[in-house]
Amino acid sequence: MDETPTRLLIHGASGRMGQALLRLAAEDPSLQVVAAVVRRPPAQRVIDGVPHFAASELSGVPPFDVAIDFSLPEGFDPVLALCVARGAGFVSGTTGIDASRQAALDAAAAGIPLVWATNFSLGVAVLAELVERAAASLPGWDCDIVESHHVHKKDAPSGTALTLGESAVQGGAEPRYASLRAGDIIGEHFVQFSGLGERVELVHRASNRDIFARGALHVARQLSGRAPGRYRVRDLVGA
Amino acid sequence: MDETPTRLLIHGASGRMGQALLRLAAEDPSLQVVAAVVRRPPAQRVIDGVPHFAASELSGVPPFDVAIDFSLPEGFDPVLALCVARGAGFVSGTTGIDASRQAALDAAAAGIPLVWATNFSLGVAVLAELVERAAASLPGWDCDIVESHHVHKKDAPSGTALTLGESAVQGGAEPRYASLRAGDIIGEHFVQFSGLGERVELVHRASNRDIFARGALHVARQLSGRAPGRYRVRDLVGA
Amino acid sequence: MDETPTRLLIHGASGRMGQALLRLAAEDPSLQVVAAVVRRPPAQRVIDGVPHFAASELSGVPPFDVAIDFSLPEGFDPVLALCVARGAGFVSGTTGIDASRQAALDAAAAGIPLVWATNFSLGVAVLAELVERAAASLPGWDCDIVESHHVHKKDAPSGTALTLGESAVQGGAEPRYASLRAGDIIGEHFVQFSGLGERVELVHRASNRDIFARGALHVARQLSGRAPGRYRVRDLVGA
Amino acid sequence: MDETPTRLLIHGASGRMGQALLRLAAEDPSLQVVAAVVRRPPAQRVIDGVPHFAASELSGVPPFDVAIDFSLPEGFDPVLALCVARGAGFVSGTTGIDASRQAALDAAAAGIPLVWATNFSLGVAVLAELVERAAASLPGWDCDIVESHHVHKKDAPSGTALTLGESAVQGGAEPRYASLRAGDIIGEHFVQFSGLGERVELVHRASNRDIFARGALHVARQLSGRAPGRYRVRDLVGA
Repeated sequence: MDETPTRLLIHGASGRMGQALLRLAAEDPSLQVVAAVVRRPPAQRVIDGVPHFAASELSGVPPFDVAIDFSLPEGFDPVLALCVARGAGFVSGTTGIDASRQAALDAAAAGIPLVWATNFSLGVAVLAELVERAAASLPGWDCDIVESHHVHKKDAPSGTALTLGESAVQGGAEPRYASLRAGDIIGEHFVQFSGLGERVELVHRASNRDIFARGALHVARQLSGRAPGRYRVRDLVGA
Repeated sequence: MDETPTRLLIHGASGRMGQALLRLAAEDPSLQVVAAVVRRPPAQRVIDGVPHFAASELSGVPPFDVAIDFSLPEGFDPVLALCVARGAGFVSGTTGIDASRQAALDAAAAGIPLVWATNFSLGVAVLAELVERAAASLPGWDCDIVESHHVHKKDAPSGTALTLGESAVQGGAEPRYASLRAGDIIGEHFVQFSGLGERVELVHRASNRDIFARGALHVARQLSGRAPGRYRVRDLVGA
Repeated sequence: MDETPTRLLIHGASGRMGQALLRLAAEDPSLQVVAAVVRRPPAQRVIDGVPHFAASELSGVPPFDVAIDFSLPEGFDPVLALCVARGAGFVSGTTGIDASRQAALDAAAAGIPLVWATNFSLGVAVLAELVERAAASLPGWDCDIVESHHVHKKDAPSGTALTLGESAVQGGAEPRYASLRAGDIIGEHFVQFSGLGERVELVHRASNRDIFARGALHVARQLSGRAPGRYRVRDLVGA
Repeated sequence: MDETPTRLLIHGASGRMGQALLRLAAEDPSLQVVAAVVRRPPAQRVIDGVPHFAASELSGVPPFDVAIDFSLPEGFDPVLALCVARGAGFVSGTTGIDASRQAALDAAAAGIPLVWATNFSLGVAVLAELVERAAASLPGWDCDIVESHHVHKKDAPSGTALTLGESAVQGGAEPRYASLRAGDIIGEHFVQFSGLGERVELVHRASNRDIFARGALHVARQLSGRAPGRYRVRDLVGA
């Protein structure tokens, strides 16, 4: 463990993820939130020891090691620019990032370490790696992916199921998908490799949405001080 | 695929594994059994195209690429010596191999490629590798191993569960074990990594004992022509 | 246990199910096969103590308590007629039984006890009953049925999944189906009831095709001496 | 649905369960909390429309249909007495109820409908019933119960696993137990029946502690207006 805490900027701090990030970071002595950026900063600028800033005040935030951004595409741009300018790490889970913003991430990765991902669960990141290895090690086996989510989730297969499927394809398998929508299931992903007379099943079960914020904080901690480049969550697990 | 089949010697060909090896090898054009060594060779020396030999005739068997041995410790010694003398690969699943025979394997590995293992299921070999990676990637998560076998199995945890546990330890986890003995379950191994709010489960299910013979044949095919050394099953999966 | 074994006629004894029925009945002292009816009876009419008959000799078979029929629709008719004439029980798993033959079953059930079913696994029969009860006890919960079979199975969902679905509907649930076709899986059925914050999962796993013959023999044993009527497998489990 | 809401007294309203009961009852138009009994009533006696009372003021609470008690054994006695005096239903999940208090419950059941249980999850109640039926329908099959809970749970097997085991015994099976303590698992119970060549698995997974309060409210609603007697949770599911 580093003795000096990693200094974080939380962008989108009033959203659901932002709130979870602030709550969980406060419990972790290896992290220090030096700036929470919100749409409308409160009258009392410091809450529980965390200074709050409006988006328009971004250029004036104190020094930080990594910014974590869960906001909207319009919010994403200035925070990425700030990280490049400051030489800080950048972690983003903002959705709706189009091709031009992906190109901006690639360009920024020449100067700073960064991660953009749609799922920050460490377990899912590990599962993706395991799926790729299993697929590579078990040529000719059938591959099925079954994902289960709450009834309010409309897209199917889930983005995470598709990511796991890409891992399977990387390993040489051709996955098929099935999706269940039931109850209030937060998220379960089941990947099955079937050979003759034997099977290997790889499963991830989420029981609490905090895993996404917890994973983003882990990634930020790991990213701090790394060489510039575009990292995946799975590159940063395990430490 | 090689066009020339791998030439096999099957030692212990009258046992349950030996019979399965002969049956499955006969279905596989990439393999050719050139000698089946049995306790008492039949009057008619060639059965289904496979020449049979008594153990006392071992030195006279035709050229082969790899010997597969599922016999007894006393039988193990002369076949290993033959492989060394012939420069052929050696695959053994004979149990009860003591420290002096392990040392003999290490010595032989200087000259020939060889594998000694207690479980030749490819799925189990892959699972062991995945368990090690998961353990290394998920520090601080709890690790539990639950294995289920038929009611006639007396040892617990199973040897395979202990091997999976060693993989977990290699990756830095401390597994705990539970064993179920029920019905005629061939073998199931369930490895669970539990974090806060999420879990990763890695499972192997065997539904047919042929997987062990099938895996040994796969290993023999892969071992043929390799550099000398002592290999694990998991080093030879995936090709 | 009755001391007098149940006397069985096996119709379709040369088929895969018929062979399994003969093999398993021979191991069971509570059963005695008094007639095996086959397309072409062997020259040596008694094999392992079981007298064999041609279909044309059906009227001359010795007294029996229950006939088990796994044949074709054309074969089904005369065996059913024989059972009615003799007052014996009738157990059939012959597929392709149309509406007129179903009517014949209903008519015959006035005089003899009989079972016609497409799946004789006792575990599946029990599962169907549990699914109905769970559905009735958990109103408003979501119900999903996932079935897995080998890659050669073409119909989906499986007949057994549809039967389980009917049980769910009887209990008041509306199931949805997903089907996996992978490896050489004999058959797995997974029924999930999802509420808020909790789930109940009911699963059947088949690892050996003998369960169908074993179940048919169990049903025949239970049917012997029962009152006339049309029974389901699930009415006869548990004794 | 009744149009008139069931009037509830919540005893132990300041505890974790009590707070969940108040929160969930407030969202349910079929329920009305007419009294919350707490150790120290707040200065402002009505909170979110719910009148609060001290234990010493119990005799003065307004009319109610059912009391729900999650408190301590000392608190249990006066609330049970009040329900008997008022002819109201009584639902209690208070632990540590000894033999003399069990006798008091039996005596009270002559006059009022009541439930005392250690687990109010509806899914667990249904599972207990299914386990009993499966055990009765599958004589001779092996029965295993595996339960998983968070690492802070000290007793093993869990009380719920023991209850499920009693259900299995009622059905004629002899269960064996295994316990896992891992991560922050709220509670999972896995009951497996293993025959030859097939298995039936019955599983309950809890993902949210609200299920216990939700179940207690369901039980209270169902108990209102019932005939006197001692009910089990499983007698009241499904409506």
